[in-house]
Amino acid sequence: MPAVQPPKDPESDPRVKAVFDDIRATRNSDFINNIWRYLAFDADLLERTWEEVKAVMATPSDLDPLTKELIYLAVSIINNCEYCVHSHSAAARAKGMTAAQHAEVLKIVSLAAKTNHLSNAMQVPVDPVFIVGEE
Amino acid sequence: MPAVQPPKDPESDPRVKAVFDDIRATRNSDFINNIWRYLAFDADLLERTWEEVKAVMATPSDLDPLTKELIYLAVSIINNCEYCVHSHSAAARAKGMTAAQHAEVLKIVSLAAKTNHLSNAMQVPVDPVFIVGEE
Amino acid sequence: MPAVQPPKDPESDPRVKAVFDDIRATRNSDFINNIWRYLAFDADLLERTWEEVKAVMATPSDLDPLTKELIYLAVSIINNCEYCVHSHSAAARAKGMTAAQHAEVLKIVSLAAKTNHLSNAMQVPVDPVFIVGEE
Amino acid sequence: MPAVQPPKDPESDPRVKAVFDDIRATRNSDFINNIWRYLAFDADLLERTWEEVKAVMATPSDLDPLTKELIYLAVSIINNCEYCVHSHSAAARAKGMTAAQHAEVLKIVSLAAKTNHLSNAMQVPVDPVFIVGEE
Amino acid sequence: MPAVQPPKDPESDPRVKAVFDDIRATRNSDFINNIWRYLAFDADLLERTWEEVKAVMATPSDLDPLTKELIYLAVSIINNCEYCVHSHSAAARAKGMTAAQHAEVLKIVSLAAKTNHLSNAMQVPVDPVFIVGEE
Amino acid sequence: MPAVQPPKDPESDPRVKAVFDDIRATRNSDFINNIWRYLAFDADLLERTWEEVKAVMATPSDLDPLTKELIYLAVSIINNCEYCVHSHSAAARAKGMTAAQHAEVLKIVSLAAKTNHLSNAMQVPVDPVFIVGEE
Repeated sequence: MPAVQPPKDPESDPRVKAVFDDIRATRNSDFINNIWRYLAFDADLLERTWEEVKAVMATPSDLDPLTKELIYLAVSIINNCEYCVHSHSAAARAKGMTAAQHAEVLKIVSLAAKTNHLSNAMQVPVDPVFIVGEE
Repeated sequence: MPAVQPPKDPESDPRVKAVFDDIRATRNSDFINNIWRYLAFDADLLERTWEEVKAVMATPSDLDPLTKELIYLAVSIINNCEYCVHSHSAAARAKGMTAAQHAEVLKIVSLAAKTNHLSNAMQVPVDPVFIVGEE
Repeated sequence: MPAVQPPKDPESDPRVKAVFDDIRATRNSDFINNIWRYLAFDADLLERTWEEVKAVMATPSDLDPLTKELIYLAVSIINNCEYCVHSHSAAARAKGMTAAQHAEVLKIVSLAAKTNHLSNAMQVPVDPVFIVGEE
Repeated sequence: MPAVQPPKDPESDPRVKAVFDDIRATRNSDFINNIWRYLAFDADLLERTWEEVKAVMATPSDLDPLTKELIYLAVSIINNCEYCVHSHSAAARAKGMTAAQHAEVLKIVSLAAKTNHLSNAMQVPVDPVFIVGEE
Repeated sequence: MPAVQPPKDPESDPRVKAVFDDIRATRNSDFINNIWRYLAFDADLLERTWEEVKAVMATPSDLDPLTKELIYLAVSIINNCEYCVHSHSAAARAKGMTAAQHAEVLKIVSLAAKTNHLSNAMQVPVDPVFIVGEE
Repeated sequence: MPAVQPPKDPESDPRVKAVFDDIRATRNSDFINNIWRYLAFDADLLERTWEEVKAVMATPSDLDPLTKELIYLAVSIINNCEYCVHSHSAAARAKGMTAAQHAEVLKIVSLAAKTNHLSNAMQVPVDPVFIVGEE
């Protein structure tokens, strides 16, 4: 149940069309998923968000694409974004995530949530050896 | 400033000593960091937590050790666990994380937080293609 | 799918009726939205919650009504309360929020989420100039 | 206690210097606060973050500067970003926030947190009237 | 709408069957609720999760079963886990939680959320008397 | 490091003095902890917060005082409120919480955090039997 109104004919706005065209070209697919259709209610918001997603996630970098997707998925689980859990689980599978790897991500995420809260509950002081000094 | 009282001489408890010995053996290091010293206020809690951390993080699996550490770090950032951010940043560096990769993790985590909240704010409906069917 | 049972005939309880009457009078509308119908399962919880919402949100104060509603909406997005995102998006529109302003709220909320996590990830020390001293 | 190492002489990197110069020009002040000094460990991350903060927060728009700052502060409180609570409380005061308005922000943020959790606890169904239809 | 694929015939895997049998025996009921059916996509994850839930929640201890369930419910509300809010509200009712007690849990959870955020917003210093010293 | 300025001589304001007097009388102690000293920057905020804390936490009800305190502590851990973790750990100890019970709260809170995220990660559908019907 949406809380904003996506435009009925988004590509009639040339700024929206340019973004959608770039999404299709970058992904080599005709499919535009809902987050982009909804962000199109504001062309500036759409442009900025896609530009950043493309730069961070769709550009070769020092981390491989599957690792990046798994980190994105982990954050989406902790933030409990239903849409994002679905879209990034699907994206990770498309990038080769196996069921065993999916299970492993769930084990790490839920273990981290567990120890994060244990640490916060005890207010454990940071070991001095972990602190990064000035250069 | 701790909220529980860690035991002064933790290894006088043989259950605690056994865990500390296993931490040292598994990590091939004499260093026991504070989270374990604080968890030692309850031997059962210490044993269970270490057993799980060892099984998930210190056992060869379908994800490489650095990837696992980066996922753990991402969750710790989102949960805002100060201790965990420090300990897992240090652990990731020890497993080879470069400054460029650290920056990249921060870009992914903060971008995911951004799009998670955009998606929640618009209550974007999940695309049917993302849904996993029964086998 | 509710997790508590709202009363079938809430206004048969005079305490509930008094709150519903005050909601209708305050808002100059006959519509009672679901949060109040569900809170009615406990008259005390209903009375306290409405009293506070009325005092904070429906009483003239040092912030204008739309600004107050946008802050409420921002919190609801971060807490990922589906019901609240819908009800406060609607309330903000009723108080004059334009689509451009709605987009702007989303930009600020998602940018703040981004920089909040960057700051937490780096554990940035607070600049001394920001600290408030004792009077 | 930082978790990344800020560069000792950040402006020796011309990309960092360009951002710092723009921050000073935009704010008409020589002061560069810590978040920018720490983000300087990665010039790309620094450039992107400042570019977005400048576009969203320092550009005239459909919301007045104080309202925008209060929304940013509200999000920072909910995400419990210590640095951000301090920097955005200070920024809001610099933009004219009175003590009475500060108290009011706290009342709204804490009331919203309260009703968000009441709503989530009861899993209140969204009233159909709140749903936004397709155009 | 699930994001992982639960096995169609989970008990054909003897490890899964052993866990399901133990759930039935421990609870003295034939009903296996969905969380276990979904966790069965990875037998190791299922075994570990059930073993911990059984040890913490289904074993006599220093807190009575209803108190333990109410704490579990409170956490589930704050983490906004829809499934968990439903399953632990039901579990608490099965252990004797009255409607008045349910309302009271909601009052405490929402009040705590309120004062947690007030405290974070003001960055209140911890009173020295609250700090736990070393033994 | 506070983000608001507590009044230097709070009891010179008769509204503040009345609240502080009631705190002392209710708790039968001369000690006023920092949260109240900071809330005193706005008498209305102070009055409302104390009135609610007193009604929910300091009034005999359907849950015993220690159970209520443990629920408050659990929420404070999940919300990562440093001040609140300290003050409510201390309050729970004052109400009789043993070290073993404290460890048990930590086990439940961290286990719940774990299963909450597993459930959200898999987007487990709610079992129909958990849904509460209309009366």
